[in-house]
Amino acid sequence: MRNKVSLKDIAQKVGVSTAAVSYALNKEKEGKVSDEMAAKIRATAKELNYQPNQIAKSLKIGRTNTLGLIIADVSNPFFATIARVVEDEAKAHGYTVVFGSSDEKAERSWDLINVLANRQVDGLIIAPSEASEDQILYLKEQKIPFVLIDRYYPDIPSSFVVLDNYKAAYDAVFHLIENGRKRVGMLAYKTNLYHMQERKRGYQEALQAAELPVGKSLLKEVKHDDTKNGVKAAIDAMLASPEGLDALFFATNTLAIHGLKYIDSLNLKVPTDLAIVSFDEGEAFDFYYCPLTHIKQPVDEIGKEAVQLLLDQMSSSNGRIGQIHFEPELIIRQSSGA
Amino acid sequence: MRNKVSLKDIAQKVGVSTAAVSYALNKEKEGKVSDEMAAKIRATAKELNYQPNQIAKSLKIGRTNTLGLIIADVSNPFFATIARVVEDEAKAHGYTVVFGSSDEKAERSWDLINVLANRQVDGLIIAPSEASEDQILYLKEQKIPFVLIDRYYPDIPSSFVVLDNYKAAYDAVFHLIENGRKRVGMLAYKTNLYHMQERKRGYQEALQAAELPVGKSLLKEVKHDDTKNGVKAAIDAMLASPEGLDALFFATNTLAIHGLKYIDSLNLKVPTDLAIVSFDEGEAFDFYYCPLTHIKQPVDEIGKEAVQLLLDQMSSSNGRIGQIHFEPELIIRQSSGA
Repeated sequence: MRNKVSLKDIAQKVGVSTAAVSYALNKEKEGKVSDEMAAKIRATAKELNYQPNQIAKSLKIGRTNTLGLIIADVSNPFFATIARVVEDEAKAHGYTVVFGSSDEKAERSWDLINVLANRQVDGLIIAPSEASEDQILYLKEQKIPFVLIDRYYPDIPSSFVVLDNYKAAYDAVFHLIENGRKRVGMLAYKTNLYHMQERKRGYQEALQAAELPVGKSLLKEVKHDDTKNGVKAAIDAMLASPEGLDALFFATNTLAIHGLKYIDSLNLKVPTDLAIVSFDEGEAFDFYYCPLTHIKQPVDEIGKEAVQLLLDQMSSSNGRIGQIHFEPELIIRQSSGA
Repeated sequence: MRNKVSLKDIAQKVGVSTAAVSYALNKEKEGKVSDEMAAKIRATAKELNYQPNQIAKSLKIGRTNTLGLIIADVSNPFFATIARVVEDEAKAHGYTVVFGSSDEKAERSWDLINVLANRQVDGLIIAPSEASEDQILYLKEQKIPFVLIDRYYPDIPSSFVVLDNYKAAYDAVFHLIENGRKRVGMLAYKTNLYHMQERKRGYQEALQAAELPVGKSLLKEVKHDDTKNGVKAAIDAMLASPEGLDALFFATNTLAIHGLKYIDSLNLKVPTDLAIVSFDEGEAFDFYYCPLTHIKQPVDEIGKEAVQLLLDQMSSSNGRIGQIHFEPELIIRQSSGA
């Protein structure tokens, strides 16, 4: 896209500022540098074969292929990493990605779909927020190519790339039980989104398989817009339950970060006082005193497959649907007391 | 934007899938549910006052006000947080934000400017990458409103919101010297970008002010595309210098994360073996065994002021320029040995 010789190259060669070069080359503004200097700058530009119009031309006529990406929250490292992978993979196929966060709100997601679809992106990758079924159906009706990531709606046929969230949670909780824990709590988000329902189902069925009681006292749900306080209240409530708590499964990395900070503040030791399994990795965990057992999502593959499925769909005439479930991997380290 | 009654509300009331509601309300596809059920669904939709065309109408005619944001790297928490603040602040003013990462590459930044400007965003907020002076001058010539964040070009007059990076580095290094450190290294990125030049200048002048030698052996520059290995090699080289190393100033949070992991792997203790000051906060540091002394950037204010300056510029007829330098704050904790 960019021409080889930049204004800066000319500026450095002549020994003036980049702005001076711009003034000299842009004749309307010629008065801002001396005639002598302007002549010298223009001669240097010619000598270096500077092509000033190339950039503006590509900006005006070159239609860049564009994909839109709607994630839940850019400040969540899981989504930020996915976004980065999608950008890199799309770039490798000649596409530029623009994205935004829905903040788990259907209204914001509509705004983004509106902005991106109105501005003719070639396709969309979406981590759908709660109550956004209408939006997905709208995209289908409008035949706008899209691929869902992280979450999907089982009763709306569409392309998606997701983790087997049921298995992920089942494996995590079963692992804690195998290591002798009998009072395993789960901290989840309060949402109807399918991925979270599946994680809760995995937790419950692992307890059932071990013939442990499945009650509401150890499965706590926190609201998205009050995570920090919600996590504290939930952990307090679990610790106060008559039979106590000896292990905790966090359904997301954000819940784990808030939860571990609170557990540390209570001087509870991991894994002696509480065994821990978390969902997702994150730089935050690398420095935690007790290396965390966690469910690893194949973030690179999720991002790459989503781009691939979207490109396939865009190039097919019959609205081809692809659905990919990735197997979770339980990375066993010290926090689960194994 | 969204109508109050959704397809899902109707689906739940009737006890069918959302897709069935969509089929029933979309007469072209009526054959997919029974006539009886379709009638029931339509009656329920009417009862609930569902307005199916409202969404599609707003998508087609409603021009959503849009801002574009170009950051260096979405997977860097500093930029992810800025992006989130910009989104929230823009939303409060009725604007939707779409963004992308330049990956510190001028070519990618051009692609994004191309995509965003071609698709008529109302204005841009940009963390400019190296060698992108041409792009900034282009935006000025095209009279596309923009505000730079984090970095700027001193010889191109433009609106920006930045930290006083010179003072930030000076204060950090002076603090280490005040605490008795005499061999203070700095780990920086190899780039001509002004913010990094200023951080290096602050480091050097703090050493000079304390009459400590300023050589190249303790100021190491790492390449963006090989951070991890570059950090290891730089730390090895500093430790191997004849006079040794007793303190280290990291010019960014990413450099600090890689650097601390490597220091830990060498079994060097912070702050006894090495005193540390880092740039920026990050969740990663919250769990580090030794709380980090760091330079705090007012991320919220930077994001908010950038949106405000951009909106001011968009509403003024004379290309008004606003330039804001924020004062850094040195947060003193244990890692600097104070």
